[in-house]
Amino acid sequence: MKKGIETRERLIATTGRLLQSQGYAATGINEILDASGTPRGSFYFHFPGGKEELARAALEASATERRAIIERAANSSKDLGKALSAVCEALAQILVESDFQLGCPLATTALETAAQVDAIQSVIAEHYYSWIKLIEGRIQQTEMPPAERAALATLVLSAVEGALLLSRSFRDPKPLKQVAASLAKAIPKTRD
Amino acid sequence: MKKGIETRERLIATTGRLLQSQGYAATGINEILDASGTPRGSFYFHFPGGKEELARAALEASATERRAIIERAANSSKDLGKALSAVCEALAQILVESDFQLGCPLATTALETAAQVDAIQSVIAEHYYSWIKLIEGRIQQTEMPPAERAALATLVLSAVEGALLLSRSFRDPKPLKQVAASLAKAIPKTRD
Repeated sequence: MKKGIETRERLIATTGRLLQSQGYAATGINEILDASGTPRGSFYFHFPGGKEELARAALEASATERRAIIERAANSSKDLGKALSAVCEALAQILVESDFQLGCPLATTALETAAQVDAIQSVIAEHYYSWIKLIEGRIQQTEMPPAERAALATLVLSAVEGALLLSRSFRDPKPLKQVAASLAKAIPKTRD
Repeated sequence: MKKGIETRERLIATTGRLLQSQGYAATGINEILDASGTPRGSFYFHFPGGKEELARAALEASATERRAIIERAANSSKDLGKALSAVCEALAQILVESDFQLGCPLATTALETAAQVDAIQSVIAEHYYSWIKLIEGRIQQTEMPPAERAALATLVLSAVEGALLLSRSFRDPKPLKQVAASLAKAIPKTRD
Protein backbone atom coordinates (compact mmCIF):
# COMPACT_ATOMS: atom_id res chain seq x y z
CA MET A 1 0.00 0.00 0.00
CA LYS A 2 2.67 2.48 1.10
CA LYS A 3 4.85 1.40 -1.84
CA GLY A 4 1.94 2.05 -4.22
CA ILE A 5 1.54 5.60 -2.93
CA GLU A 6 5.28 6.18 -3.27
CA THR A 7 5.24 4.96 -6.88
CA ARG A 8 2.33 7.25 -7.68
CA GLU A 9 4.02 10.24 -6.04
CA ARG A 10 7.29 9.53 -7.84
CA LEU A 11 5.54 9.31 -11.22
CA ILE A 12 3.78 12.62 -10.55
CA ALA A 13 6.93 14.43 -9.39
CA THR A 14 9.05 13.16 -12.30
CA THR A 15 6.40 14.08 -14.86
CA GLY A 16 5.92 17.54 -13.32
CA ARG A 17 9.62 18.29 -13.77
CA LEU A 18 9.70 16.95 -17.34
CA LEU A 19 6.58 18.92 -18.37
CA GLN A 20 8.09 22.07 -16.95
CA SER A 21 11.47 21.78 -18.61
CA GLN A 22 10.62 20.29 -22.00
CA GLY A 23 6.82 20.17 -22.34
CA TYR A 24 4.07 17.68 -23.09
CA ALA A 25 5.01 16.39 -26.55
CA ALA A 26 8.66 15.72 -25.71
CA THR A 27 7.72 13.81 -22.57
CA GLY A 28 7.02 10.23 -23.61
CA ILE A 29 5.87 7.38 -21.38
CA ASN A 30 9.23 5.62 -21.83
CA GLU A 31 11.17 8.63 -20.56
CA ILE A 32 8.82 8.96 -17.57
CA LEU A 33 9.24 5.26 -16.70
CA ASP A 34 13.03 5.43 -17.08
CA ALA A 35 13.42 8.67 -15.13
CA SER A 36 11.18 7.49 -12.28
CA GLY A 37 12.29 3.83 -12.33
CA THR A 38 8.70 2.60 -12.63
CA PRO A 39 7.62 -0.66 -14.35
CA ARG A 40 5.10 -0.14 -17.17
CA GLY A 41 2.41 -2.26 -15.49
CA SER A 42 2.63 -0.22 -12.35
CA PHE A 43 2.20 3.01 -14.34
CA TYR A 44 -1.03 1.78 -15.98
CA PHE A 45 -2.29 0.52 -12.62
CA HIS A 46 -2.03 4.05 -11.19
CA PHE A 47 -2.98 5.94 -14.36
CA PRO A 48 -5.32 3.84 -16.51
CA GLY A 49 -5.96 7.00 -18.56
CA GLY A 50 -2.28 6.97 -19.62
CA LYS A 51 -0.12 10.03 -20.28
CA GLU A 52 -2.98 12.53 -20.32
CA GLU A 53 -4.25 11.48 -16.89
CA LEU A 54 -0.74 11.49 -15.41
CA ALA A 55 -0.01 14.90 -16.96
CA ARG A 56 -3.16 16.38 -15.40
CA ALA A 57 -2.16 15.02 -11.97
CA ALA A 58 1.41 16.27 -12.43
CA LEU A 59 0.30 19.79 -13.42
CA GLU A 60 -2.09 19.89 -10.43
CA ALA A 61 0.68 18.81 -8.07
CA SER A 62 3.40 21.11 -9.37
CA ALA A 63 1.07 24.13 -9.54
CA THR A 64 -0.05 23.49 -5.94
CA GLU A 65 3.54 23.09 -4.77
CA ARG A 66 4.61 26.29 -6.56
CA ARG A 67 1.66 28.16 -5.07
CA ALA A 68 2.86 27.19 -1.57
CA ILE A 69 6.34 28.60 -2.35
CA ILE A 70 4.79 31.79 -3.75
CA GLU A 71 2.50 32.25 -0.74
CA ARG A 72 5.37 31.76 1.70
CA ALA A 73 7.47 34.38 -0.10
CA ALA A 74 4.48 36.74 -0.48
CA ASN A 75 3.67 36.54 3.23
CA SER A 76 7.16 37.74 4.13
CA SER A 77 6.03 41.38 3.81
CA LYS A 78 2.81 43.34 4.31
CA ASP A 79 3.93 45.74 1.55
CA LEU A 80 2.79 44.42 -1.83
CA GLY A 81 5.83 45.70 -3.74
CA LYS A 82 8.19 44.02 -1.27
CA ALA A 83 6.12 40.83 -1.28
CA LEU A 84 6.35 40.74 -5.05
CA SER A 85 10.13 41.20 -4.96
CA ALA A 86 10.38 38.29 -2.52
CA VAL A 87 8.27 36.10 -4.84
CA CYS A 88 10.45 36.97 -7.85
CA GLU A 89 13.58 36.26 -5.84
CA ALA A 90 12.24 32.82 -4.90
CA LEU A 91 11.40 32.15 -8.56
CA ALA A 92 14.84 33.34 -9.71
CA GLN A 93 16.47 30.98 -7.23
CA ILE A 94 14.51 27.97 -8.54
CA LEU A 95 15.42 29.00 -12.10
CA VAL A 96 19.14 29.39 -11.50
CA GLU A 97 19.47 26.28 -9.29
CA SER A 98 17.79 24.15 -11.99
CA ASP A 99 20.12 25.54 -14.67
CA PHE A 100 17.15 27.41 -16.25
CA GLN A 101 15.05 24.26 -16.65
CA LEU A 102 12.37 25.16 -14.09
CA GLY A 103 10.37 28.32 -14.83
CA CYS A 104 6.58 28.25 -14.57
CA PRO A 105 5.29 24.70 -13.95
CA LEU A 106 2.35 25.27 -16.31
CA ALA A 107 3.57 27.55 -19.12
CA THR A 108 5.42 25.11 -21.38
CA THR A 109 2.51 22.67 -21.49
CA ALA A 110 0.02 25.56 -21.69
CA LEU A 111 1.51 26.92 -24.92
CA GLU A 112 1.83 23.48 -26.50
CA THR A 113 -1.62 22.19 -25.69
CA ALA A 114 -3.78 25.32 -25.26
CA ALA A 115 -5.48 24.89 -28.59
CA GLN A 116 -5.31 21.09 -28.73
CA VAL A 117 -5.94 19.10 -25.54
CA ASP A 118 -9.06 20.27 -23.68
CA ALA A 119 -8.54 18.13 -20.57
CA ILE A 120 -5.07 19.61 -20.01
CA GLN A 121 -6.02 23.17 -20.95
CA SER A 122 -8.81 23.24 -18.33
CA VAL A 123 -6.45 22.32 -15.44
CA ILE A 124 -4.01 25.02 -16.53
CA ALA A 125 -6.68 27.71 -16.94
CA GLU A 126 -8.07 26.89 -13.48
CA HIS A 127 -4.68 27.34 -11.79
CA TYR A 128 -3.83 30.56 -13.65
CA TYR A 129 -7.22 31.92 -12.63
CA SER A 130 -6.57 31.00 -8.99
CA TRP A 131 -3.19 32.78 -9.10
CA ILE A 132 -4.84 35.96 -10.45
CA LYS A 133 -7.36 35.76 -7.57
CA LEU A 134 -4.50 35.31 -5.08
CA ILE A 135 -2.81 38.50 -6.35
CA GLU A 136 -6.15 40.34 -6.41
CA GLY A 137 -6.63 39.44 -2.74
CA ARG A 138 -3.38 41.22 -1.89
CA ILE A 139 -4.24 44.23 -4.06
CA GLN A 140 -7.47 44.61 -2.05
CA GLN A 141 -5.33 45.70 0.88
CA THR A 142 -3.94 48.65 -1.10
CA GLU A 143 -5.49 51.96 -2.12
CA MET A 144 -6.14 50.75 -5.68
CA PRO A 145 -9.77 51.47 -6.73
CA PRO A 146 -11.81 48.22 -6.91
CA ALA A 147 -12.50 48.62 -10.65
CA GLU A 148 -8.77 48.47 -11.44
CA ARG A 149 -7.77 45.55 -9.21
CA ALA A 150 -8.50 42.69 -11.61
CA ALA A 151 -6.55 44.35 -14.42
CA LEU A 152 -3.55 45.02 -12.14
CA ALA A 153 -3.58 41.40 -10.91
CA THR A 154 -3.57 40.21 -14.54
CA LEU A 155 -0.69 42.59 -15.32
CA VAL A 156 1.34 41.27 -12.37
CA LEU A 157 0.87 37.60 -13.32
CA SER A 158 1.49 38.34 -17.02
CA ALA A 159 4.68 40.25 -16.29
CA VAL A 160 6.07 37.53 -14.01
CA GLU A 161 5.18 34.78 -16.51
CA GLY A 162 6.75 36.75 -19.37
CA ALA A 163 9.86 37.46 -17.28
CA LEU A 164 10.24 33.74 -16.56
CA LEU A 165 10.03 33.09 -20.32
CA LEU A 166 12.67 35.75 -21.10
CA SER A 167 14.92 34.63 -18.23
CA ARG A 168 14.83 31.04 -19.52
CA SER A 169 15.45 32.22 -23.10
CA PHE A 170 18.41 34.41 -22.08
CA ARG A 171 19.58 31.91 -19.45
CA ASP A 172 19.85 34.87 -17.14
CA PRO A 173 17.59 35.83 -14.20
CA LYS A 174 17.93 39.56 -15.00
CA PRO A 175 14.50 40.01 -16.69
CA LEU A 176 12.82 38.60 -13.56
CA LYS A 177 14.74 41.02 -11.34
CA GLN A 178 14.01 44.01 -13.62
CA VAL A 179 10.31 43.18 -13.72
CA ALA A 180 10.12 42.83 -9.94
CA ALA A 181 11.72 46.26 -9.53
CA SER A 182 9.50 47.94 -12.16
CA LEU A 183 6.30 46.42 -10.78
CA ALA A 184 7.20 47.37 -7.21
CA LYS A 185 7.32 51.01 -8.37
CA ALA A 186 3.99 50.80 -10.23
CA ILE A 187 2.10 49.14 -7.38
CA PRO A 188 0.12 51.23 -4.88
CA LYS A 189 1.10 51.22 -1.20
CA THR A 190 -0.62 48.87 1.25
CA ARG A 191 -3.02 50.59 3.69
CA ASP A 192 -1.81 50.66 7.33
CA MET B 1 14.61 27.63 -59.68
CA LYS B 2 11.45 29.55 -58.85
CA LYS B 3 9.76 26.32 -57.81
CA GLY B 4 12.67 25.58 -55.47
CA ILE B 5 12.28 28.93 -53.76
CA GLU B 6 8.54 28.36 -53.41
CA THR B 7 9.11 24.95 -51.81
CA ARG B 8 11.59 26.44 -49.36
CA GLU B 9 9.23 29.29 -48.46
CA ARG B 10 6.32 26.90 -48.02
CA LEU B 11 8.34 24.64 -45.71
CA ILE B 12 9.38 27.64 -43.63
CA ALA B 13 5.85 29.09 -43.37
CA THR B 14 4.27 25.74 -42.46
CA THR B 15 6.90 25.00 -39.83
CA GLY B 16 6.58 28.50 -38.36
CA ARG B 17 2.86 27.97 -37.78
CA LEU B 18 3.32 24.48 -36.31
CA LEU B 19 6.08 25.62 -33.93
CA GLN B 20 3.90 28.47 -32.75
CA SER B 21 0.78 26.43 -32.10
CA GLN B 22 2.19 23.14 -30.79
CA GLY B 23 5.94 23.52 -30.31
CA TYR B 24 9.17 21.86 -31.39
CA ALA B 25 8.78 18.33 -30.03
CA ALA B 26 5.27 17.80 -31.39
CA THR B 27 6.29 18.99 -34.86
CA GLY B 28 7.76 16.00 -36.67
CA ILE B 29 9.23 15.92 -40.17
CA ASN B 30 6.32 13.80 -41.42
CA GLU B 31 3.74 16.34 -40.27
CA ILE B 32 5.73 19.17 -41.88
CA LEU B 33 5.95 17.27 -45.19
CA ASP B 34 2.24 16.39 -45.11
CA ALA B 35 1.07 19.87 -44.16
CA SER B 36 3.25 21.57 -46.77
CA GLY B 37 2.87 18.91 -49.48
CA THR B 38 6.65 18.55 -49.86
CA PRO B 39 8.47 15.35 -50.94
CA ARG B 40 11.08 14.14 -48.43
CA GLY B 41 13.98 14.47 -50.90
CA SER B 42 13.09 18.05 -51.58
CA PHE B 43 13.08 18.83 -47.85
CA TYR B 44 16.60 17.43 -47.34
CA PHE B 45 17.80 19.27 -50.44
CA HIS B 46 16.74 22.61 -48.90
CA PHE B 47 17.57 21.75 -45.29
CA PRO B 48 20.44 19.23 -45.14
CA GLY B 49 20.64 19.95 -41.39
CA GLY B 50 17.14 18.49 -40.99
CA LYS B 51 14.49 19.62 -38.51
CA GLU B 52 16.82 21.80 -36.43
CA GLU B 53 17.98 23.81 -39.45
CA LEU B 54 14.41 24.22 -40.73
CA ALA B 55 13.18 25.23 -37.26
CA ARG B 56 15.85 27.94 -37.01
CA ALA B 57 14.86 29.32 -40.42
CA ALA B 58 11.16 29.16 -39.50
CA LEU B 59 11.66 30.98 -36.19
CA GLU B 60 13.74 33.65 -37.96
CA ALA B 61 11.04 34.13 -40.59
CA SER B 62 8.05 34.21 -38.27
CA ALA B 63 9.78 36.51 -35.77
CA THR B 64 10.71 38.90 -38.61
CA GLU B 65 7.17 38.82 -39.99
CA ARG B 66 5.67 39.44 -36.54
CA ARG B 67 8.09 42.33 -35.98
CA ALA B 68 6.80 43.98 -39.15
CA ILE B 69 3.19 43.71 -37.89
CA ILE B 70 4.22 45.11 -34.49
CA GLU B 71 6.13 48.01 -36.03
CA ARG B 72 3.23 48.91 -38.30
CA ALA B 73 0.82 48.95 -35.33
CA ALA B 74 3.32 50.81 -33.13
CA ASN B 75 3.85 53.51 -35.76
CA SER B 76 0.13 54.30 -35.79
CA SER B 77 0.58 56.69 -32.84
CA LYS B 78 3.32 58.95 -31.48
CA ASP B 79 1.99 58.36 -27.96
CA LEU B 80 3.63 55.23 -26.50
CA GLY B 81 0.58 54.14 -24.52
CA LYS B 82 -1.63 54.36 -27.61
CA ALA B 83 1.00 52.63 -29.75
CA LEU B 84 1.11 49.78 -27.25
CA SER B 85 -2.68 49.45 -27.28
CA ALA B 86 -2.57 49.24 -31.09
CA VAL B 87 0.10 46.50 -30.91
CA CYS B 88 -1.94 44.50 -28.38
CA GLU B 89 -5.04 44.89 -30.53
CA ALA B 90 -3.17 43.53 -33.57
CA LEU B 91 -1.91 40.59 -31.47
CA ALA B 92 -5.41 39.90 -30.10
CA GLN B 93 -6.76 39.83 -33.64
CA ILE B 94 -4.17 37.25 -34.76
CA LEU B 95 -4.97 35.19 -31.65
CA VAL B 96 -8.73 35.19 -32.09
CA GLU B 97 -8.65 34.66 -35.87
CA SER B 98 -6.38 31.61 -35.44
CA ASP B 99 -8.71 30.14 -32.76
CA PHE B 100 -6.03 30.80 -30.11
CA GLN B 101 -3.35 28.82 -31.95
CA LEU B 102 -1.10 31.78 -32.81
CA GLY B 103 0.32 33.71 -29.87
CA CYS B 104 4.02 34.58 -29.78
CA PRO B 105 5.89 32.90 -32.67
CA LEU B 106 8.86 32.14 -30.40
CA ALA B 107 7.47 31.38 -26.93
CA THR B 108 6.30 27.77 -27.29
CA THR B 109 9.62 26.63 -28.74
CA ALA B 110 11.53 28.87 -26.31
CA LEU B 111 10.07 27.16 -23.24
CA GLU B 112 10.54 23.67 -24.66
CA THR B 113 14.09 24.04 -25.87
CA ALA B 114 15.59 26.84 -23.73
CA ALA B 115 17.60 24.48 -21.61
CA GLN B 116 18.17 21.82 -24.29
CA VAL B 117 18.90 22.91 -27.88
CA ASP B 118 21.58 25.63 -28.04
CA ALA B 119 21.21 26.38 -31.76
CA ILE B 120 17.49 27.11 -31.36
CA GLN B 121 17.82 28.97 -28.07
CA SER B 122 20.32 31.42 -29.58
CA VAL B 123 17.96 32.46 -32.42
CA ILE B 124 15.15 33.00 -29.91
CA ALA B 125 17.30 35.01 -27.47
CA GLU B 126 18.52 37.22 -30.31
CA HIS B 127 14.97 38.11 -31.43
CA TYR B 128 13.68 38.73 -27.89
CA TYR B 129 16.67 41.01 -27.33
CA SER B 130 15.92 42.93 -30.53
CA TRP B 131 12.28 43.38 -29.45
CA ILE B 132 13.40 44.82 -26.09
CA LYS B 133 15.67 47.25 -27.99
CA LEU B 134 12.75 48.23 -30.26
CA ILE B 135 10.60 49.10 -27.22
CA GLU B 136 13.53 50.90 -25.58
CA GLY B 137 13.86 53.07 -28.70
CA ARG B 138 10.28 54.24 -28.27
CA ILE B 139 10.73 54.83 -24.53
CA GLN B 140 13.67 57.14 -25.36
CA GLN B 141 11.13 59.58 -26.78
CA THR B 142 9.38 59.84 -23.39
CA GLU B 143 10.36 61.58 -20.17
CA MET B 144 11.50 58.34 -18.57
CA PRO B 145 15.00 58.75 -17.02
CA PRO B 146 17.64 56.84 -19.06
CA ALA B 147 18.54 54.54 -16.15
CA GLU B 148 14.98 53.15 -16.02
CA ARG B 149 14.37 52.65 -19.74
CA ALA B 150 15.81 49.15 -20.12
CA ALA B 151 13.82 47.85 -17.14
CA LEU B 152 10.58 49.36 -18.46
CA ALA B 153 11.18 47.87 -21.92
CA THR B 154 11.70 44.46 -20.31
CA LEU B 155 8.51 44.92 -18.28
CA VAL B 156 6.51 45.79 -21.42
CA LEU B 157 7.74 42.77 -23.39
CA SER B 158 7.30 40.46 -20.38
CA ALA B 159 3.76 41.65 -19.76
CA VAL B 160 2.73 41.23 -23.40
CA GLU B 161 4.32 37.76 -23.60
CA GLY B 162 2.65 36.71 -20.35
CA ALA B 163 -0.69 38.11 -21.51
CA LEU B 164 -0.43 36.09 -24.74
CA LEU B 165 0.20 32.98 -22.62
CA LEU B 166 -2.82 33.68 -20.38
CA SER B 167 -5.04 34.59 -23.35
CA ARG B 168 -4.17 31.30 -25.04
CA SER B 169 -4.71 29.37 -21.79
CA PHE B 170 -8.10 31.01 -21.14
CA ARG B 171 -8.99 31.02 -24.87
CA ASP B 172 -10.01 34.62 -24.31
CA PRO B 173 -8.19 37.81 -25.45
CA LYS B 174 -9.17 39.63 -22.23
CA PRO B 175 -5.76 39.37 -20.46
CA LEU B 176 -4.11 41.00 -23.49
CA LYS B 177 -6.62 43.86 -23.40
CA GLN B 178 -6.30 44.33 -19.63
CA VAL B 179 -2.50 44.40 -19.85
CA ALA B 180 -2.56 46.95 -22.69
CA ALA B 181 -4.81 49.21 -20.61
CA SER B 182 -2.74 48.85 -17.42
CA LEU B 183 0.57 49.45 -19.20
CA ALA B 184 -0.78 52.49 -21.03
CA LYS B 185 -1.50 54.05 -17.61
CA ALA B 186 1.95 53.18 -16.22
CA ILE B 187 3.88 54.50 -19.22
CA PRO B 188 5.21 58.08 -19.27
CA LYS B 189 3.95 60.55 -21.88
CA THR B 190 5.87 61.08 -25.10
CA ARG B 191 7.71 64.43 -25.35
CA ASP B 192 6.21 66.88 -27.86
